[in-house]
Amino acid sequence: MIRFESDYLEGAHPAVLELLERTNMQQTPGYGMDPWCEKARGIIRELCGLPEADVYFLVGGTQTNAAVIDALLRPVEGVICADTGHINVHETGAVESTRHKVIGLPHKDGKITAAQVEEKYLADGFSEHVVRPAMVYISFPTEYGTIYSKEELTGLYGVCRKHGLPLFIDGARLGYGLAAKSCDLTLKELARLCDVFYIGGTKVGALFGEAVVFTNPSLGKDFRYFIKNHGGMLAKGRLLGIQFAALLEDGLYFDIAARGVREADRIREALAEKGIPLYVPNDTNQVFCLLTEEQHEKLTAEFSFDEEGRPDGERYLVRMCTGWATLPENTGRLTDAIRAL
Amino acid sequence: MIRFESDYLEGAHPAVLELLERTNMQQTPGYGMDPWCEKARGIIRELCGLPEADVYFLVGGTQTNAAVIDALLRPVEGVICADTGHINVHETGAVESTRHKVIGLPHKDGKITAAQVEEKYLADGFSEHVVRPAMVYISFPTEYGTIYSKEELTGLYGVCRKHGLPLFIDGARLGYGLAAKSCDLTLKELARLCDVFYIGGTKVGALFGEAVVFTNPSLGKDFRYFIKNHGGMLAKGRLLGIQFAALLEDGLYFDIAARGVREADRIREALAEKGIPLYVPNDTNQVFCLLTEEQHEKLTAEFSFDEEGRPDGERYLVRMCTGWATLPENTGRLTDAIRAL
Amino acid sequence: MIRFESDYLEGAHPAVLELLERTNMQQTPGYGMDPWCEKARGIIRELCGLPEADVYFLVGGTQTNAAVIDALLRPVEGVICADTGHINVHETGAVESTRHKVIGLPHKDGKITAAQVEEKYLADGFSEHVVRPAMVYISFPTEYGTIYSKEELTGLYGVCRKHGLPLFIDGARLGYGLAAKSCDLTLKELARLCDVFYIGGTKVGALFGEAVVFTNPSLGKDFRYFIKNHGGMLAKGRLLGIQFAALLEDGLYFDIAARGVREADRIREALAEKGIPLYVPNDTNQVFCLLTEEQHEKLTAEFSFDEEGRPDGERYLVRMCTGWATLPENTGRLTDAIRAL
Amino acid sequence: MIRFESDYLEGAHPAVLELLERTNMQQTPGYGMDPWCEKARGIIRELCGLPEADVYFLVGGTQTNAAVIDALLRPVEGVICADTGHINVHETGAVESTRHKVIGLPHKDGKITAAQVEEKYLADGFSEHVVRPAMVYISFPTEYGTIYSKEELTGLYGVCRKHGLPLFIDGARLGYGLAAKSCDLTLKELARLCDVFYIGGTKVGALFGEAVVFTNPSLGKDFRYFIKNHGGMLAKGRLLGIQFAALLEDGLYFDIAARGVREADRIREALAEKGIPLYVPNDTNQVFCLLTEEQHEKLTAEFSFDEEGRPDGERYLVRMCTGWATLPENTGRLTDAIRAL
Repeated sequence: MIRFESDYLEGAHPAVLELLERTNMQQTPGYGMDPWCEKARGIIRELCGLPEADVYFLVGGTQTNAAVIDALLRPVEGVICADTGHINVHETGAVESTRHKVIGLPHKDGKITAAQVEEKYLADGFSEHVVRPAMVYISFPTEYGTIYSKEELTGLYGVCRKHGLPLFIDGARLGYGLAAKSCDLTLKELARLCDVFYIGGTKVGALFGEAVVFTNPSLGKDFRYFIKNHGGMLAKGRLLGIQFAALLEDGLYFDIAARGVREADRIREALAEKGIPLYVPNDTNQVFCLLTEEQHEKLTAEFSFDEEGRPDGERYLVRMCTGWATLPENTGRLTDAIRAL
Repeated sequence: MIRFESDYLEGAHPAVLELLERTNMQQTPGYGMDPWCEKARGIIRELCGLPEADVYFLVGGTQTNAAVIDALLRPVEGVICADTGHINVHETGAVESTRHKVIGLPHKDGKITAAQVEEKYLADGFSEHVVRPAMVYISFPTEYGTIYSKEELTGLYGVCRKHGLPLFIDGARLGYGLAAKSCDLTLKELARLCDVFYIGGTKVGALFGEAVVFTNPSLGKDFRYFIKNHGGMLAKGRLLGIQFAALLEDGLYFDIAARGVREADRIREALAEKGIPLYVPNDTNQVFCLLTEEQHEKLTAEFSFDEEGRPDGERYLVRMCTGWATLPENTGRLTDAIRAL
Repeated sequence: MIRFESDYLEGAHPAVLELLERTNMQQTPGYGMDPWCEKARGIIRELCGLPEADVYFLVGGTQTNAAVIDALLRPVEGVICADTGHINVHETGAVESTRHKVIGLPHKDGKITAAQVEEKYLADGFSEHVVRPAMVYISFPTEYGTIYSKEELTGLYGVCRKHGLPLFIDGARLGYGLAAKSCDLTLKELARLCDVFYIGGTKVGALFGEAVVFTNPSLGKDFRYFIKNHGGMLAKGRLLGIQFAALLEDGLYFDIAARGVREADRIREALAEKGIPLYVPNDTNQVFCLLTEEQHEKLTAEFSFDEEGRPDGERYLVRMCTGWATLPENTGRLTDAIRAL
Repeated sequence: MIRFESDYLEGAHPAVLELLERTNMQQTPGYGMDPWCEKARGIIRELCGLPEADVYFLVGGTQTNAAVIDALLRPVEGVICADTGHINVHETGAVESTRHKVIGLPHKDGKITAAQVEEKYLADGFSEHVVRPAMVYISFPTEYGTIYSKEELTGLYGVCRKHGLPLFIDGARLGYGLAAKSCDLTLKELARLCDVFYIGGTKVGALFGEAVVFTNPSLGKDFRYFIKNHGGMLAKGRLLGIQFAALLEDGLYFDIAARGVREADRIREALAEKGIPLYVPNDTNQVFCLLTEEQHEKLTAEFSFDEEGRPDGERYLVRMCTGWATLPENTGRLTDAIRAL
């Protein structure tokens, strides 16, 4: 069985393992107060062009989302997101567990618009009988692998700033978004179009780890308390600093993300040749397509995908996922199989 | 500077790193559903002599404590512990964040007794105006490095069972407790004297990781929901299975813990020779002693310790901590320096 | 200005005030342990035909909803309701504040169906990555004043029992629902078609108060802890017992509710005569209708309604609300004004 | 049985009932937006000499404490109080349910000192591994009926302001405190020596109700959201305004509180004559005394007290409580019985 079900099937990029090993017996203070974390923070500030940004490292995405949202909201406030947003449908209520309502707006290809956010804010932002919408969460890329254009993000952030709603970008797959052909945003630009975002490591070459960047540093001032309170303060915090240093120092992160996207491009080409429709078109590392029963049976004999039901009652919706670790020969086997359908 | 301030100063035991590297490009399902986690669960069940036990892996201690307590209590209930308990004083309110009161009882050398628990339960267990004490948390070893004897633990668990209070043992340093000369409990016995406990990996040879064992499996039946909800469900869950497999398969965990304790024994010997008093005597891997200003100044020029204030207003209370990674030559330098005071 | 904006514009039915006054200087134990609460509990058990039911009194609806839901769910679980449900849109996140997700399903006239509930449960009830739908909340009448038929409620409760989901009926306006011409349910029947419900006092003759009935008494066994924890344990609890005793002893509650509904019927008649459309037709005490700008301007010069926006961008949606206290002459003035449009 | 167990045994002062009845059929907006609440807010601002203060009305004390504390703290912060504080021992974890730790300091006669608060703040206020002490809660009078002197309160508030810790005074029995002979504080002075406090109605003449005064109005700016979220927003909010208007307009509140205290003075005199020791001396409306087994048996045959165990293992600690409603002839019977012991 060759697996294409997710982008966290393997361990870490060899460069990450190598640095972990090389530094293994160094003695460092715990909890992220070590020189490796400091070094990684410096690299990230430089990559973002934000020398004042606050940078923190956490282990995983759900933890990061819950801690950031908890830190930014008052108890009676909620977070706006797409109804398909990860925090709304895939985190077992982690945000609600911090006492906040997740306010899902109808998505279009996994995205929400500036107009939707403004409409919701104007409708619900002024009555004490309703949860106050007080921040906005989006993901880049979204759950459907789509990305916001510079124009879309500029519009969204404009509305957010106009109404005092911090904008938080979940970048669990940030590398794959920035590597998409259609992406017209640089990391520096994206960092300026939100208040806080994170650079996902787990799905782009690290064993684990997410680097949270408060581009608006006043919002992050007591964030270490929230990390600890949420059980996210890693004792050997340097493991996060080491991994991000290994990934980011020479642009490795962006190279391997681009490689992952190219593998997905190959799959999209094969599907297009066979006329197999995409469920939501995108050009990042996740391919959502609709297979007939026969196609599904043949492909899943050899390959595993993320199975997402039968939205039209007939065809199978599957996600084929590539990543930094996808072997080109495995992609080749899959595209051959698709072409042979 | 040679560091003795904690037992999480270095990375992982070489055997752990070696297995992580060897398995790095294996493709496995995520979230702990992989063969490595299954293998580690099997080893743990066998080591505990409990073929029916439920075993789960989490990343760190605070997360584990909060998730287990959250899973065992109703919202109006609280958890009894020593007032010095980690959950009471060192987790930034992680347990309170799950809406539960931490009910601290006066400790003796970091421990609480069966009689104290019964008294509190009888006082507060029956009025809806008071938080109901509904479970008991202890650590083994405690925050002061002391351990419960078989008799003490048997008594405590007897009271817990009598009143229907689950007993939860925080085993962040379990290995060092079982390796103490005075320990009259085996792992199998300890496992039978509680409802849930964990085998700490972070401080005993792993990069990170705690293995939670529900010896009373009915209590753990939906625990995976709590792991996810608490942000503790590692995407690449196999990293935990691999580490525990490496540590536990041939008893490595217990050997390296014993080695760590022997290094602490050497420090205790040197302190005794110089008549430097222990603050709380114990025979695990943490040495709490009281230094005069002069002694403190001399030692801290070369060594770092955990500084815990001046409890008598004069002498410095420091914790000297050894572990699986402590180099014997470093212990030697410290004992030489102590003897030279 | 004559007010029709809600059913909590006035104080209490004179019989309630009279009994409060008559008993004013009696000395009773606090917190609902007094003879008046005991008496009211007895009347309610008899009215429901459930001698074993557990009955509790709380002050208001939001408090009651949050306390009941908190008592029935585990932390990782959520409550299914109509997307228009009061707990979803009008309680400032009170349920989320107890760490539970409110899972809104698309409503039809304020109601949800057995099929919808079953579909959601089957989709989300078995994965630890998703909040587990674990109970169902409906209101009777709904936010749109509609009521469930015996057949609908039987179907809904059947699905709930099949999948082990407790069914909770918010009866803030229960009296007005039971008094509707189209209602084919008795109180005894309704009580058997759910696990817990409440008899709303605030909107039907009391100064305040909701009587929660656990028809499934095992679910209510520690509910007094939740009342206290939620700040709902009234010191002078007898005030609730006295009010419900006054309202329920001779069926006064049902008589005054029926009177309130008849006043709404008069309004509906007048609207029908003028061809003014109802937004959602119902036959309880809330009348939702669509007014043209001119109609709206004329009526609101003399009468106040609950203003609910302009759903079609043109006409005004208003709620005209009657109740136990509506003076027939005031209804007459309103119907005259409608007919004069 | 004549009851002296608490100060909430009866209904309301006749003037309160009379005004409720007189206004019963007035139509007013709900949720505290009515003219009666506005009137009561004006009276309170004037009594406090604080024309800018924010005033809100809630139903009961536990609800008020939890809502105020929730509004003032960030999630990772805790509230300092005496270990005997109501929020620490008598509210079933209502504060912890808002995710905050209650940080109990050792009390002296129910009180804490400025020095204790400062010491705790300096110890724990600067490490993200510990809950940050971020506000202070005291009660006036305390759980033991004692009161802070002007000097003590000035000192406490000075430390609070120095370190940015809001000071919150629970005034559930405020009237009885201000009426004590030893009280050297006026209401105006007390209002200036804290950031938020409340004037308790439930125990001083109202059916129910607590008037929260944010003397520091910036802290209360979104408090209505918290009232609603906590289930404390009374639909017929005017009931609270009416009651406080009736009680406060002509100083009735202070008169009846003084009368309640005088009845307690009579009991203290009788106890002193018989040499029956007070457990904690005070001069408010609660009398804590220690009875021998024989004394206890004789008195409880005719009178009910709040039974608080046998702190020395021998004598019975009871609380004898008077209030606005205590009949002088009942006090007479009790003092006769004491003298006859």
